[in-house]
Amino acid sequence: MKEYDVVVIGGGHAGCEAAFAAARVGADVLLITLNMDHIAQMSCNPAVGGIAKGQVVREIDAMGGAQGLVTDAASIQFRMLNRTKGPAVWSPRSQCDKVVYQRAMKLLLEETPNLDILQAEVTGFLVENGRITGVENQFGDRIPCRAVVVTTGTFLNGKLHYGMRNFPGGRAGDFPSNALSTALSGQLGLRIGRLKTGTPPRILAKTIDFSRMKLQEAEGQEEEFCCWSREQLPPLPHARRHDMPCHQVYSTEETAQIVRDNIQFSPMYQGVIKGIGTRYCPSFEDKVVRFPQHPVHLLYLEPEGADTREYYINGISTSLPVEVQRAMVRSIPGMERAVISRYAYAIEYDFLYPDQLERSLRVKSYRNLFSAGQINGTSGYEEAAGQGLVAGLNASRLAAGKTPVELGRDKSYIGVMIDDLCTKEIVEPYRLFTSRAEYRLHLRQDNADLRLSEQAHELGLLPEKKYREFEAYRRELERVLAVCRTTKSSGKPLLVHLKDLPDGISREEGMARLPFPAGLLPAIPEGRTGRRVWNELLVEARYDGYLQREAAEIGRMRKLEVLSIPEDFDYSIVRGLAGEARQKLERVRPTTLAQAGRIDGVTPADIALLQVSIVRRSREESAG
Amino acid sequence: MKEYDVVVIGGGHAGCEAAFAAARVGADVLLITLNMDHIAQMSCNPAVGGIAKGQVVREIDAMGGAQGLVTDAASIQFRMLNRTKGPAVWSPRSQCDKVVYQRAMKLLLEETPNLDILQAEVTGFLVENGRITGVENQFGDRIPCRAVVVTTGTFLNGKLHYGMRNFPGGRAGDFPSNALSTALSGQLGLRIGRLKTGTPPRILAKTIDFSRMKLQEAEGQEEEFCCWSREQLPPLPHARRHDMPCHQVYSTEETAQIVRDNIQFSPMYQGVIKGIGTRYCPSFEDKVVRFPQHPVHLLYLEPEGADTREYYINGISTSLPVEVQRAMVRSIPGMERAVISRYAYAIEYDFLYPDQLERSLRVKSYRNLFSAGQINGTSGYEEAAGQGLVAGLNASRLAAGKTPVELGRDKSYIGVMIDDLCTKEIVEPYRLFTSRAEYRLHLRQDNADLRLSEQAHELGLLPEKKYREFEAYRRELERVLAVCRTTKSSGKPLLVHLKDLPDGISREEGMARLPFPAGLLPAIPEGRTGRRVWNELLVEARYDGYLQREAAEIGRMRKLEVLSIPEDFDYSIVRGLAGEARQKLERVRPTTLAQAGRIDGVTPADIALLQVSIVRRSREESAG
Repeated sequence: MKEYDVVVIGGGHAGCEAAFAAARVGADVLLITLNMDHIAQMSCNPAVGGIAKGQVVREIDAMGGAQGLVTDAASIQFRMLNRTKGPAVWSPRSQCDKVVYQRAMKLLLEETPNLDILQAEVTGFLVENGRITGVENQFGDRIPCRAVVVTTGTFLNGKLHYGMRNFPGGRAGDFPSNALSTALSGQLGLRIGRLKTGTPPRILAKTIDFSRMKLQEAEGQEEEFCCWSREQLPPLPHARRHDMPCHQVYSTEETAQIVRDNIQFSPMYQGVIKGIGTRYCPSFEDKVVRFPQHPVHLLYLEPEGADTREYYINGISTSLPVEVQRAMVRSIPGMERAVISRYAYAIEYDFLYPDQLERSLRVKSYRNLFSAGQINGTSGYEEAAGQGLVAGLNASRLAAGKTPVELGRDKSYIGVMIDDLCTKEIVEPYRLFTSRAEYRLHLRQDNADLRLSEQAHELGLLPEKKYREFEAYRRELERVLAVCRTTKSSGKPLLVHLKDLPDGISREEGMARLPFPAGLLPAIPEGRTGRRVWNELLVEARYDGYLQREAAEIGRMRKLEVLSIPEDFDYSIVRGLAGEARQKLERVRPTTLAQAGRIDGVTPADIALLQVSIVRRSREESAG
Repeated sequence: MKEYDVVVIGGGHAGCEAAFAAARVGADVLLITLNMDHIAQMSCNPAVGGIAKGQVVREIDAMGGAQGLVTDAASIQFRMLNRTKGPAVWSPRSQCDKVVYQRAMKLLLEETPNLDILQAEVTGFLVENGRITGVENQFGDRIPCRAVVVTTGTFLNGKLHYGMRNFPGGRAGDFPSNALSTALSGQLGLRIGRLKTGTPPRILAKTIDFSRMKLQEAEGQEEEFCCWSREQLPPLPHARRHDMPCHQVYSTEETAQIVRDNIQFSPMYQGVIKGIGTRYCPSFEDKVVRFPQHPVHLLYLEPEGADTREYYINGISTSLPVEVQRAMVRSIPGMERAVISRYAYAIEYDFLYPDQLERSLRVKSYRNLFSAGQINGTSGYEEAAGQGLVAGLNASRLAAGKTPVELGRDKSYIGVMIDDLCTKEIVEPYRLFTSRAEYRLHLRQDNADLRLSEQAHELGLLPEKKYREFEAYRRELERVLAVCRTTKSSGKPLLVHLKDLPDGISREEGMARLPFPAGLLPAIPEGRTGRRVWNELLVEARYDGYLQREAAEIGRMRKLEVLSIPEDFDYSIVRGLAGEARQKLERVRPTTLAQAGRIDGVTPADIALLQVSIVRRSREESAG
């Protein structure tokens, strides 16, 4: 077969974004997936976005990526979470049509130039002189390439648990990928661990009495993830409805009692499952056992699409036996006669300890191997896609002889996540929260393009046409902001006055209630750009002081980020460094002093010693 | 779990139609499928209908079934085949959007009352005192039921062949169903054989140069499979386009040479594949080897949907190794740079010898077990669905304590097919042709409702509202036909004059060119009904004499069909019966003398002897 620049293994949320990014910057890409019909399959909840995750989707979109536009195509209900808490923590979320999501993503990839797709199982790597030169699949194809991105999700040695019964599988209905796990550990010598996640049962709508549940309507507003105008968007299939409601209901004390009565059949509690699950998305049995003070739990019934009558019960992930699941479901009001169409299960899978990665998502020991998504110990479609973009970009850069790049913690949630992964010890599936970011006032959902589009354009990720649209918007915004900072009314800049407008007020209403003569406000264009300028203006007005303080901190941190630690730095020469700190530093091998400071167990004192040592070595080298 | 009337195993074309039919006549139904996302998956070509098959879809539709309306929803190109050959052999065919087909079928089933769906693998039967009382699945569910329909397609012990490499699977990307095969043979003692089928490679459109191929446009006319007015149809998702073209291209001598050079790597020719393939849908290597006089072969490039850029190459099914497939594809004009997204493969699977079935599709040795589709040795989505309808109907009747019914050879292609299956020896996958029917002038695509809707209504398959629509149409047609038969012009009935109108002439044109004074023609209503009446009138006019002769033959045959052979009939008492005939009769156990006459190796002389014997026995019994 022909040589590709980049081979992406896996067609999930990480793999799709990786392939799309790599092809966008010009690489010749092959995406290999076990089943083309399952490209971008939403294995768990039918939704994209949410707290911190929605910000990641905006970031991907601002860099010309796929997830935002595919989500908009598949959206059956858009909500802005945290609206009551002020724009700085607003988080967009879309309930999605799972099938439209797949179709739209598959079509997008099929129409992307330089991007081939092959249905096959990758079984191993071609390695010459310690360097990966390609991959091979179960059909015997040997496919040469310059860089590889591995995005295997839950498929590596995947095992599905339903009570005490378990079955091999990458997801219900899919084969696991076992040979590749052996190749990663045996052939490449990478350290592999075991994680666990789970999914709730799906229910046939006709067996649910929704009248006994609380309706959660779609928001009226026509909001979207994509920041680009419609002319910029490829023609993708769209969901048939955008106004589908969800329903809320509480589990009962009976539900909890059923769980307690059957806990001896839980593979988690019996030690059958060895992988570690995520604390932040616990199974229902975890909720019952660990939080006995909560007798009932809030559940959401979410439609799986506009053209299906299956429902997802958000909040009741379980690996209890199927007959227990049936009893649990039927103990919920309105579900007394509910029929399960797909049983809940837990899945165990292999992952790569991410301390084996650089912040470019390159594997340290193989210079042209990258990994992204759940294989790196994360959970979530958005976390996967964010990593996919970075890994795909860097694989493509490497293939073109360029240096991989990193996204900073101060510029994006994606940067926060990857830095955390490479720096901190992963003991459970990693999930993003706004609290993981030091500068969350800066990392907002509304300003992802202002943070990232410039850099994305420089890297070749953002097409020229989109960049011009962004530039026009930024120019307008800067002009308006400058006027509002300099023009005064009653002795105070307009920006300060604007702070008095209520949160999230619409432009029409806001203009009518300006706390200064309307003539002072600079003209804001009509349409999309104007709407965005108006929103940014309000956020800037509200947070101006805080934002400036945060910016100062970011500046201080950047200085430490600039001080890089040589790749081959010998920590044993640093006098006075604590043993634990040295061990952790040797394992993580941080690339900057700032990163070193974020390692658990490395103290500010250690950093000071390290800094002295690095500066000395650098002086000696320049002298030599 | 609760007791169901009918459990259907398998969610393919047979299983969906079976479940839909059983639920329609009032049974409480559970459909169990390995993957709910693969319900009604089109594993091979993206099309429904064609010669004889299109007639089957019309028959299913006339009986209130699913396949016609789902095909209309998914249609991206409709063609009436054989238009040049006169309406009696016209055959409708739709190119389909595979994903819309699945979604529409799944939604239809999800919205059908009394029909539950469960994603699971059935691993065995519950048997008490030699009677099936339920099924069990891999999760340990024991599901009691009154009747079971098995529709396993290619999944029983499925094995996929790519050159000399083979893998277990029910279809590329799907697990096989192995435990169930063991249950059917071991637990139930049924005779199982091995068949083989195959599928061509899929190609990424962006790598095809269509300008070098012959365009085959969609037909302009807005035709459909469904004979019902729009108000009768459930709201299903529809394909985004109905005008997608196909392309024609010829393979080259180089293609054939590549096959000859690599025939030693063919699992068919090396004896690795033991199952027997279908003669009428040969692999490309079969075409090259068996027809050396044809240096090139016509291929069709068919889109797999409106929202994908994958293409199916109709005519190049193969199980040669993947590298040979790549070379073959690239030897075709316009495909020099083509990239395969999914490799072609052959699949071997277990089937039940259908001589173990009654013509109700009931298994003779288990009175509440039915089977339908590829498991009975057929090929084709339409053949599968046709059987599914009969098996589902009869399983439901049995559960309700009613006698199973059979469809006659003189009333439907479905009847022809099932009679063939139960009567003739199946040595290769069975496919329908118009030549299999004795009365193909009667079994037309345009009169399926006239043949079947009355009976379907009596059986409870056709809802009241559809039946009323049918009755109104039939009344109109009979009125118009009666006038045209009795009213004369220039001494001849109008019907005879109408014969002179050209084939398939539209109503508008036809009315303007009537070969008699227009006032003589009875009024034909406007709209859909009128259009249908007009078309039938022309067909009746054209074939009147032939149809009457065929009707006389049908009458004679019916007399033989009426003479039924007792279930426990002892063939050894028939004096003079040839040994071969006796053996075959004992194996098939025909239910009527007419069926006995269709068994290969049973002569008219044998039938005469048999008739005497049966009449004598019946007299003796009435006397005793």
